[in-house]
Amino acid sequence: MRTASFYPPFRVLMGPGPTEVHPRVLAALARPLVSHFDPTGFRLLDEIRALLQYVFQTRNEVTFVVSGPGTAGMEACVANLVEPGDKVVVCQNGFFSGRIREMVERHGGVAVVVEEEWGRAVDPEKLEDALRRHPDAKVVAFVHAETSTGVLSDAATLAEIARRHGCLTLVDTVTSLGGVPVKVDEWGLDVVYSGSQKCLSAPPGLSPVTFSERALDAVRRRKMPVVSFFLDIQALADYWLGKPPAAGANAARVYHHTVPIPLLYAIHEALTLLREEGLENAWARHRANHSRLRDGLEAMGLTYWVRSEADRIPHLNTIRVPDGVDDAWVRRRLLEDFGIEIGAGLGPLAGRIWRVGLMGYGSHPRNVAYFLSALREVLAR
Amino acid sequence: MRTASFYPPFRVLMGPGPTEVHPRVLAALARPLVSHFDPTGFRLLDEIRALLQYVFQTRNEVTFVVSGPGTAGMEACVANLVEPGDKVVVCQNGFFSGRIREMVERHGGVAVVVEEEWGRAVDPEKLEDALRRHPDAKVVAFVHAETSTGVLSDAATLAEIARRHGCLTLVDTVTSLGGVPVKVDEWGLDVVYSGSQKCLSAPPGLSPVTFSERALDAVRRRKMPVVSFFLDIQALADYWLGKPPAAGANAARVYHHTVPIPLLYAIHEALTLLREEGLENAWARHRANHSRLRDGLEAMGLTYWVRSEADRIPHLNTIRVPDGVDDAWVRRRLLEDFGIEIGAGLGPLAGRIWRVGLMGYGSHPRNVAYFLSALREVLAR
Repeated sequence: MRTASFYPPFRVLMGPGPTEVHPRVLAALARPLVSHFDPTGFRLLDEIRALLQYVFQTRNEVTFVVSGPGTAGMEACVANLVEPGDKVVVCQNGFFSGRIREMVERHGGVAVVVEEEWGRAVDPEKLEDALRRHPDAKVVAFVHAETSTGVLSDAATLAEIARRHGCLTLVDTVTSLGGVPVKVDEWGLDVVYSGSQKCLSAPPGLSPVTFSERALDAVRRRKMPVVSFFLDIQALADYWLGKPPAAGANAARVYHHTVPIPLLYAIHEALTLLREEGLENAWARHRANHSRLRDGLEAMGLTYWVRSEADRIPHLNTIRVPDGVDDAWVRRRLLEDFGIEIGAGLGPLAGRIWRVGLMGYGSHPRNVAYFLSALREVLAR
Repeated sequence: MRTASFYPPFRVLMGPGPTEVHPRVLAALARPLVSHFDPTGFRLLDEIRALLQYVFQTRNEVTFVVSGPGTAGMEACVANLVEPGDKVVVCQNGFFSGRIREMVERHGGVAVVVEEEWGRAVDPEKLEDALRRHPDAKVVAFVHAETSTGVLSDAATLAEIARRHGCLTLVDTVTSLGGVPVKVDEWGLDVVYSGSQKCLSAPPGLSPVTFSERALDAVRRRKMPVVSFFLDIQALADYWLGKPPAAGANAARVYHHTVPIPLLYAIHEALTLLREEGLENAWARHRANHSRLRDGLEAMGLTYWVRSEADRIPHLNTIRVPDGVDDAWVRRRLLEDFGIEIGAGLGPLAGRIWRVGLMGYGSHPRNVAYFLSALREVLAR
């Protein structure tokens, strides 16, 4: 058996995530460990919560990271909110909204699907219509930025409709958070999850989540305990926030599991960088580099999968593979000859699109220029 | 809001985990990212699997890490193996076996508890007796090394009894793996999970798991899908091993979630270190440093919680807090004046024991000497 250390090759990560990570974040990963019950570690937890409240634009107390990737965050939201028999309207316009639907069904919920073409934003009219037909729905679930298609939906409008029909919202912001505005309180979103490895530019392995008071009330009123012990939001809050004290006692953090300290160091540093830059500046930077890329691609005669510019995720560009071009060969050449990774299409879009990410630290003119020059060279061969 | 970087203080981690991490492992954490679909990343996955087969002493194909802490690994084992109505005999002699019981019940299983005093090994006679009374039991679950009490149970004997009664075994090796012999194939264990942050001396956040063919057959025969999408072992295997190919096609890895690359770098390096040392040498080292510590503690008049030396986990020493000594004050002095962290008692043992870990990289004469000298000084104040 080979026992040598593993050294990664040169890579420019321009797929749908993970993204490149700032050197300060890489350096943070290597700091010596403290334990999950160290007093200074508690300070780390508190600061991560405050930084996430800023990034999510929320005052929700229950705002922290789940100790797993975005998929674990998605499951945390579904598992806590959905009880067997609950009706959930799922707006399905891509791969990840399909995954929410599958999770709802595995948890015994009844999914009502509002179907949309892969490449279009969720249609608010269709949601309104579904809610009229299903007045007993409890939750509306949708993906803000569909990583599989490059489509951004209008989260504020969808949430407003859901609220008007008395539903809670379950919102995927994995690819939107940090890259475009996500305003949890202003838009009235209820349970929201994200991922660490997209526009936050931390390594993969953590999922930021936030729960509104309305959502927590629903969790507290559950008839059955949450099936998942690992993702039980109330037990997680007893660690991250401390358990509400009995009369006269102090709140104390309750052990639940050992949190992944190096990833917490890393997301703390990444969020600190974002705070230093300022959210608005980060949004503007993502938009500016998107425009640079789009202009370059259009000059080469390439076109976007998402027709309407307004519906495009600026930092996840889905480009049609031109007729007669071998998708896999192009991606292999980019990877092997230039060290550039871009994403392939998922599901029905396999072979039909490329997914080019300009997220977080990777949203930089250098990456735009390098990618355009490499792609030009490969397509000319 | 404070936006400064976080720098951890000096710490010697001698609690029940996380443990100190080798500088080579810290350095591995900071290597630049590759993505979860990079060809070189696939080599990383394959090597981690081979190294874990060595450490678990198994040829099980389904041997990899779950992208979450030990609690996620525990839940992966329970969620896949236990269906609603399944009878599970849980040998409960501490905090973590109690947690298995809770998970079994949350997943709709019927837990039959074989109760044992906190501080004693699971009694094989009691298990035999319970299985005679419950011939319809499907699974026997137990904790090999109970982190809450410092007790090591006889996994080989318990598994032999379970097998003789036609049961599958679900075994927690979080604190045993790498520190004492764990022989999955020789002992005939079926589903086994561990943690990265104990004797493997990697950072917390990953849970090594291994499933026998017998266990996988049971998973494939389930009537209902696994409730957890995130922890569905067959979907995870489709990524880690590749999906079994259709006729004429190659096995291909199927996307499930984005694995936490830096933690994979780290566990790869930690397992490589263990492979370089050799498992048998690591076991001997853990035992030798245990003896050093025990001799020093006994010379100070301190006694172990676990009476029989044979039942003690060598690398997790549970020591009685002497009469009249303030448990919390001693731990605070050790932490603040010496940077040494040891563990407190959990549940009914709170205030009654200290838990002193000498695991992985932390199992070193330097730590034994420093701890004994610091404790002597604090107790003399």
